[in-house]
Amino acid sequence: MTVRPDPASWRAHRSGVPAVDDLVAALAVERLSATEFTGHSTAVPERRVFGGQLLAQCAVAATLTVPPPSALHSMHAYFVRAARPSVKLRFEVTTLRDGRSFAVRRVDALQDNEIVTSVTASFHLPEDGMAHQDPMPDRESPADLPARTPFHMAPDGPARAGAVELRACTPREGLPESSVWMRITAPLPDDQVLHQAMLVYLSDFSILHGAFNLHRVARPEVRTASLDHSMWLHRPARADDWLLHDSRSPSAAGARAMGQAGLFTASGELAATAAQEMLVRSSAST
Amino acid sequence: MTVRPDPASWRAHRSGVPAVDDLVAALAVERLSATEFTGHSTAVPERRVFGGQLLAQCAVAATLTVPPPSALHSMHAYFVRAARPSVKLRFEVTTLRDGRSFAVRRVDALQDNEIVTSVTASFHLPEDGMAHQDPMPDRESPADLPARTPFHMAPDGPARAGAVELRACTPREGLPESSVWMRITAPLPDDQVLHQAMLVYLSDFSILHGAFNLHRVARPEVRTASLDHSMWLHRPARADDWLLHDSRSPSAAGARAMGQAGLFTASGELAATAAQEMLVRSSAST
Repeated sequence: MTVRPDPASWRAHRSGVPAVDDLVAALAVERLSATEFTGHSTAVPERRVFGGQLLAQCAVAATLTVPPPSALHSMHAYFVRAARPSVKLRFEVTTLRDGRSFAVRRVDALQDNEIVTSVTASFHLPEDGMAHQDPMPDRESPADLPARTPFHMAPDGPARAGAVELRACTPREGLPESSVWMRITAPLPDDQVLHQAMLVYLSDFSILHGAFNLHRVARPEVRTASLDHSMWLHRPARADDWLLHDSRSPSAAGARAMGQAGLFTASGELAATAAQEMLVRSSAST
Repeated sequence: MTVRPDPASWRAHRSGVPAVDDLVAALAVERLSATEFTGHSTAVPERRVFGGQLLAQCAVAATLTVPPPSALHSMHAYFVRAARPSVKLRFEVTTLRDGRSFAVRRVDALQDNEIVTSVTASFHLPEDGMAHQDPMPDRESPADLPARTPFHMAPDGPARAGAVELRACTPREGLPESSVWMRITAPLPDDQVLHQAMLVYLSDFSILHGAFNLHRVARPEVRTASLDHSMWLHRPARADDWLLHDSRSPSAAGARAMGQAGLFTASGELAATAAQEMLVRSSAST
């Protein structure tokens, strides 16, 4: 049986941007047994762990139990409880199936023996078949958009470079849509498992921005909580190259907004599709 | 604690269409304990159980463990193994969380102690918030489309009325899209839990038809297997009234096609959004 390279090697990677190395180290979950892994959270001064980090760690943990060349092609997650950054995470992987072409895994991320995130993920042995994809939407290119201080994941605030750069395209008035270019701000190791995990991580940024744009709500006016997250990985892509995260919200009702996103490479390949539902409460209603 | 009405009452329902009563009886899963249920498959002359039936049964089983007025708002499923129609199904429900506003359940559907379908589902206590939805697409109305013999679920073949009526709108050339009106062919009991389950059931019809239309493949030329299924229930709807199942496929690659669908009521409300990935192999490649 072929075995995955140990992600411990990722931890030795020095990209030149400490926040990137910090993120890579967090995604390099440590194996405790055949089915158990542990990990820590990135050094972000927030009260809750960013959902994308938990999703990416679960993706890595599940992948490490499936022999190559099978690759992650989809995952579905529920954010069951808010995770605390200071508490170690444990990832328990359960094999639901090891078939000829497909492997299915459940991954529960736990803190203090309580599930914080529950993921089911599926892996597929590469095969050929019919192909099509949505065309890349016509948007401003990242070079035409203002460079901002890299967003999020900056342990020491904006003075220090963050791990993720986001450049939002001009909002389209009256539509529940959003287009954001994003990338990891420094080169990553050449491991497709890590790039897939980073794609999962990035997909959790901005899926519901279209709904916020439409209703002209700013984040301080609402309290939000991601409820679930789905991801379908269609084609390989690098997370340290620009990706267009193009999203729309087909519905909001009952204090829940739902969003769908396509992640395109700069050359126009549809790398992944994502979906998420988010609880959106006005701060006044608490 | 308020308790759900026992779906045993559904089994006494006589709609006038035996295939509908057969389907309703299959969705009325029987409680074995606080967390275990059993069910059987509808009398369809097929080798595999229809995925929509499994999803709907899991939805009912999970719902029966959550006190009203909390309602199912989303579910994510993997079809782990093909289920056999002749073998009884057991549904095991696990509580992942009972929170103030949200309850999360895992439901594993088993045959002979092997998981055939694994579902995670979330329930939300009704609350108000921002609202928007995709407009209803401009399509032919069901009255303008030819009535066909109700599709599927007809135990004795086309001579006997089936439980589901499907009327496909004219395919749009060169686009991976499909619009199909669908409804249960006879009146259902007035229980929103059953109508939600029937919406889940119906959502599993035709999500990938757009991909098949684009590639002009007919089902006998390809072997297909649904891999997963996601469902977000936005607004209440009746499954015995016409619903427009409007779907598109953003991507197909690596022998997997992915589809997204909106289910609209005849009056234009977006009742639900669904997503599914399907394995599509040319029959020659086996």
